Amino acid sequence: MNYPIKRPQPIQKSTSAANRGMDLEQAINDTNQYYIDNDIAYIYKKPIPIQVVKVDYAKRSAAKISEAYYKIPSTTDYNGIYRGRYVDFEAKETRSKTSFPLKNIHKHQVQHLDNVRRHGGISFLIVHFSLLNRSFLLDSGFVTQYYQRSDIGKKSITLAEFIENGHELKEAYVKRLDYLGVLDKYYFAKQ
Amino acid sequence: MNYPIKRPQPIQKSTSAANRGMDLEQAINDTNQYYIDNDIAYIYKKPIPIQVVKVDYAKRSAAKISEAYYKIPSTTDYNGIYRGRYVDFEAKETRSKTSFPLKNIHKHQVQHLDNVRRHGGISFLIVHFSLLNRSFLLDSGFVTQYYQRSDIGKKSITLAEFIENGHELKEAYVKRLDYLGVLDKYYFAKQ
Repeated sequence: MNYPIKRPQPIQKSTSAANRGMDLEQAINDTNQYYIDNDIAYIYKKPIPIQVVKVDYAKRSAAKISEAYYKIPSTTDYNGIYRGRYVDFEAKETRSKTSFPLKNIHKHQVQHLDNVRRHGGISFLIVHFSLLNRSFLLDSGFVTQYYQRSDIGKKSITLAEFIENGHELKEAYVKRLDYLGVLDKYYFAKQ
Repeated sequence: MNYPIKRPQPIQKSTSAANRGMDLEQAINDTNQYYIDNDIAYIYKKPIPIQVVKVDYAKRSAAKISEAYYKIPSTTDYNGIYRGRYVDFEAKETRSKTSFPLKNIHKHQVQHLDNVRRHGGISFLIVHFSLLNRSFLLDSGFVTQYYQRSDIGKKSITLAEFIENGHELKEAYVKRLDYLGVLDKYYFAKQ
């Protein structure tokens, strides 16, 4: 019998950025900058909240913060305005190939996204599956629903659920991760 | 993103705030908290942008930032959602009794407020004249207009102009500085 021969796979050495996949935060920042530069939308990443404890004013040049600590963010990473609507979202990466673990998002962030939707804003979660190099936008309504389910056992949102209820974001060259295209199609079209 | 957390130490505030007049930032934060607690609006102060240079992971408890510097903010201090609309503003205090000096606001902040208005959001400046204990909300349309005038000489917005084109905010006990009342009256009434 002729058995198919399995050649040993060469171990991938990712030296160039091309093999390393997308840096989600950078891709979103680049996309937002494109929107700003073209007067399309004004969506910004919020600064990381830091509790400053000690500032050193000794040097004439600039105040140096010499003791500070990271704080828990009150809200989400990104917010702003698009087509007159308030837009708010959180972006997360996972190395899992099958699901997004809900421990990666704070409970009060889920609550915040839900509050925004209830008050007429557009809010969602973007998840990048880095090993699959696939990204999805999932409306906060589903995020809340899956999060509530986590109280009774299931602690993640499966890839299949992202495929079914989310919208896949394709990476492109100029508009790196054109999530507003999804908003045009699925949020504004309903109006 | 998940950052290592250290519980924030409360910054010691003045012992007797009563005599010093209103702390504008505290008044706005209290007001926003009231709106949040009563499910009225979700408007937050953005964290102060800080460039972290060195982080010390030596202690088991929490990552200590040991070198960092303040950065110029890209946008404004406050933004969020109210009655389905995007709301964005900057808040400033002045000790002048006659005018608000325009050097107290960055050019790109004026531009940001203008961008928000052009895209259908509600954007404004709140100025507190601390020695008069009077506060005004001024729409970004006027802010832009007065700012452009500053190129040709006049480098401030006078108190008389705030009285004429702005809306005075009265301090109260529970809703410390109820700026959303002004929005109801002057922004939503038009619709």
